[in-house]
Amino acid sequence: MIQKEIILPSFPAGFHLIDNLVLNALGELPETGLLNLFLKHTSAALLLNENADPDVLIDLNLLLEKIAPEGAPFYTHVLEGTDDMPAHFKTAVFGSSLTIPISHRRLNTGIWQGIYFCEFRRHSSRRKLVLTVIS
Amino acid sequence: MIQKEIILPSFPAGFHLIDNLVLNALGELPETGLLNLFLKHTSAALLLNENADPDVLIDLNLLLEKIAPEGAPFYTHVLEGTDDMPAHFKTAVFGSSLTIPISHRRLNTGIWQGIYFCEFRRHSSRRKLVLTVIS
Amino acid sequence: MIQKEIILPSFPAGFHLIDNLVLNALGELPETGLLNLFLKHTSAALLLNENADPDVLIDLNLLLEKIAPEGAPFYTHVLEGTDDMPAHFKTAVFGSSLTIPISHRRLNTGIWQGIYFCEFRRHSSRRKLVLTVIS
Repeated sequence: MIQKEIILPSFPAGFHLIDNLVLNALGELPETGLLNLFLKHTSAALLLNENADPDVLIDLNLLLEKIAPEGAPFYTHVLEGTDDMPAHFKTAVFGSSLTIPISHRRLNTGIWQGIYFCEFRRHSSRRKLVLTVIS
Repeated sequence: MIQKEIILPSFPAGFHLIDNLVLNALGELPETGLLNLFLKHTSAALLLNENADPDVLIDLNLLLEKIAPEGAPFYTHVLEGTDDMPAHFKTAVFGSSLTIPISHRRLNTGIWQGIYFCEFRRHSSRRKLVLTVIS
Repeated sequence: MIQKEIILPSFPAGFHLIDNLVLNALGELPETGLLNLFLKHTSAALLLNENADPDVLIDLNLLLEKIAPEGAPFYTHVLEGTDDMPAHFKTAVFGSSLTIPISHRRLNTGIWQGIYFCEFRRHSSRRKLVLTVIS
């Protein structure tokens, strides 16, 4: 078992492909295994989704905004900023963790699947990601 | 560790129980372990949910349609068909992967939990699923 | 590999921190590993989210109620009570399972991340949780 904790670069709010960043942090992968990615935060998420057309990201963002609207009058938790409570809900919906198979020393994701780090706050501290490889 | 990649039969849009298909592909399970299921796609998902009353599936579909409506005027990503962008969002919400405990050589799911393959496109190519058993 | 199946205390509808309950059930953790938590139910979920301000839980609940409203006229699955179908959808969205890294014999969650058991029914039988530790 290999385990590494890395600090992500400071990303602006939005969706950021981190496939290469993750692979570079891990170095050589085992022949067969599983990779678990775990984000140690409650206002940012991990997501597998379409890695080709950036229009998809615009629409994912719009749909998230509809289910967790910023500035809605019914929020109780408002002290940490208007983008904080929506960020907690978006994180709950997308999730903080991914588990991906490793086959033939590569991540066995589909050709259109990218690993996204989703930053839901406009101003955030640097985010910590734990990578664990089981083989 | 056992790992198999299988191609699912062509399923129509909707929810399809795949418990037996998965068990048949795996053969004998270890005494204790974990099974990870990973779908290599961005417009279809995996889901654990009620396996008894098909009415539940009708309502799951209605609720998904409400949070990712087909043909909404605000979509940017429309070139691949009106059901494509909703499919990406539904996949993000339900997820592409499940991890299930194995106990006493069986999947240790609850009595009402079925494993669903969720096809969100009306016309799709055949879908690839990676099964990994750790023991 | 360590695996335990526990029965949770009867919790009322809402969000309940179970970090200590889980740690007590597991005893000493390995130096490095992964913990999988798996809930054997389709109307209750597991969630990682903010563990400090209880206002967050009020708003998570409001946002869930908006995407899976109780008593909406369009539900087909109504025989098991008005809170049953919303509970199935909330479970699908939050998920039944979490995988968390273990580092230096502790759960390597972020400082603000708590493990929540989410009870979505007003009257439920006692819930079963399977804990599996890989090292």
